[in-house]
Amino acid sequence: MKHDRILLEHGAGGFLSHHLITDVFLPLLKNPWLERLEDSAILRIGDQKLCFTTDSYVIDPIFFPGGDIGSLAVHGTVNDLSVCGGKPLAMSTGFILEEGFPMEDLRRIIRSMAEAAAKAGVPIVTGDTKVVARGAADGLFINTSGIGLIDYPSPLSVESIQPGDVIIVSGAIGDHGAAVLSKRRELGLKSEIRSDSAPLNGLIAQILAASPDIHFMRDPTRGGLGAILAEIAAQSGFLIELREKDIPVREEVRGICEILGFDPLFLANEGKVTLFCAPGDEGRILNVIKSHEYGRDAAVIGAVGEPGRGRLVLRTAFGGSREVDLPVGELVPRIC
Amino acid sequence: MKHDRILLEHGAGGFLSHHLITDVFLPLLKNPWLERLEDSAILRIGDQKLCFTTDSYVIDPIFFPGGDIGSLAVHGTVNDLSVCGGKPLAMSTGFILEEGFPMEDLRRIIRSMAEAAAKAGVPIVTGDTKVVARGAADGLFINTSGIGLIDYPSPLSVESIQPGDVIIVSGAIGDHGAAVLSKRRELGLKSEIRSDSAPLNGLIAQILAASPDIHFMRDPTRGGLGAILAEIAAQSGFLIELREKDIPVREEVRGICEILGFDPLFLANEGKVTLFCAPGDEGRILNVIKSHEYGRDAAVIGAVGEPGRGRLVLRTAFGGSREVDLPVGELVPRIC
Repeated sequence: MKHDRILLEHGAGGFLSHHLITDVFLPLLKNPWLERLEDSAILRIGDQKLCFTTDSYVIDPIFFPGGDIGSLAVHGTVNDLSVCGGKPLAMSTGFILEEGFPMEDLRRIIRSMAEAAAKAGVPIVTGDTKVVARGAADGLFINTSGIGLIDYPSPLSVESIQPGDVIIVSGAIGDHGAAVLSKRRELGLKSEIRSDSAPLNGLIAQILAASPDIHFMRDPTRGGLGAILAEIAAQSGFLIELREKDIPVREEVRGICEILGFDPLFLANEGKVTLFCAPGDEGRILNVIKSHEYGRDAAVIGAVGEPGRGRLVLRTAFGGSREVDLPVGELVPRIC
Repeated sequence: MKHDRILLEHGAGGFLSHHLITDVFLPLLKNPWLERLEDSAILRIGDQKLCFTTDSYVIDPIFFPGGDIGSLAVHGTVNDLSVCGGKPLAMSTGFILEEGFPMEDLRRIIRSMAEAAAKAGVPIVTGDTKVVARGAADGLFINTSGIGLIDYPSPLSVESIQPGDVIIVSGAIGDHGAAVLSKRRELGLKSEIRSDSAPLNGLIAQILAASPDIHFMRDPTRGGLGAILAEIAAQSGFLIELREKDIPVREEVRGICEILGFDPLFLANEGKVTLFCAPGDEGRILNVIKSHEYGRDAAVIGAVGEPGRGRLVLRTAFGGSREVDLPVGELVPRIC
């Protein structure tokens, strides 16, 4: 799959995104941190274990039901640190602004970042601003990077996943993707779907406190639950089985997906965590998640099977099963 | 100075950049780290002192004599960590790519980042890639953030600056700005000026090892030596005196400035450090700098005077003097 130019799909979280990383970035930047292919790097500094992550946000539109590019940029980095078991300590932010961008919109976005950072309890400690001429960017782009402190005793890593592990998702999937799509297409639907964009550090701290046997967590953002689980299956080499009927999806999201021809499995989430835990632990963990404001609709959705060639298999509601691959076609560009 | 839209000058490192930070970002994100107005935030984690910094790079053109956007992004973050006294430990990188960007150029830039990171001895440990449609960005933008470990005993801070402090610059100023300008305008000059883009962590480690009495350092990037010293004068409240005849400027840079109507004092540098040290220490420090490959043309260029209203004054080569303010008009947009 050779391309001599960047395609939109290289940024959409599917097959081409994966190959851009593994075929272009990794061979040139080769180092053990990047090769883990996880959202945060783990650094040992003295006797401390830190995690460090970065994300740029190019979402279109910048204001959407349930959030905006500012709150999203804060939640995204807080959540990336949290899923690697880190207590987020501090964030940076870099703004790229297009000449002519309305100052009032800029203030609104910075205010939203400040509120999101305060709610998450994570300060934005350093920043940078660049401006490019009209037409050289689309409004504004934001980068946030973050540092967290890890004190969970066992490593949360794809390598910790075991056959028999139970898979939980913390709520209904696809809300963020559906909210942005419906805003973008101006569908004029009556019931407005809101993004689930939220800081998960509080919820995840409670999960980690409840069980010493969490093996892995990831937030199913770009590419959705389907893409991240297909990637985990491939990385771990295990069969991963999902039960379609157990995956929570809101009726409105299902409706939008039918109208637009999307699969909720591949729609982005910005306030959900998927976790792998030791069998027997799932009841306790599910109770903790369900009692948190961001986890009311949590569910056990599948399990890890035997080692093999690392496939993700969906047991459909009708009793059949199908293999789920990293999506190849265009997912939703600029979803985060 | 109210503007209801972002102007190019808001990103150029002068007066409007300063006011965008102090009037828009700071009041909304208000916290003690940001209020220091320094390039890196200092964080205490356990008994360790870390610094954390971020910068986005939007330089135009992306390839220029002496470097490219990739090496620049590495050097910029390495240098920001180094001037706060930090030993750089790790960097992140976030790419925003325009659909259609040539894969070969992307590989060339990543290779250049890898080489710059290897030369500086600082790994790129985590990353992110986004793609936007044709016309929604100009080729590519890169963010790098970084973490460093500080073990210099006294704080390198504007607040540590004292009357009588001696000011040193590590070499000739304006090379980066002049190189980018001459490339951009296709001046067709015979002698090609190269950017000074370089990693300063090695040089700065030697400076810190040579003297326990460095008070402050900054790399005079966007806005040049003039803008950063004017800002330091305003922040510290001290008179800062510069001797024009002692400021090293290459003949070619002076020539370009005359042709294009720029002042080398406000041209960006990407491989220079300006430092404030206790009087009496400057000889030893200058020797250390001059014996380093990136410091051959270092010079003592001025001194800190009495407290007052925080002015930067240039003693001109002709025996006069003039006050230097943060530049108001357009400096050079997209210089870094």
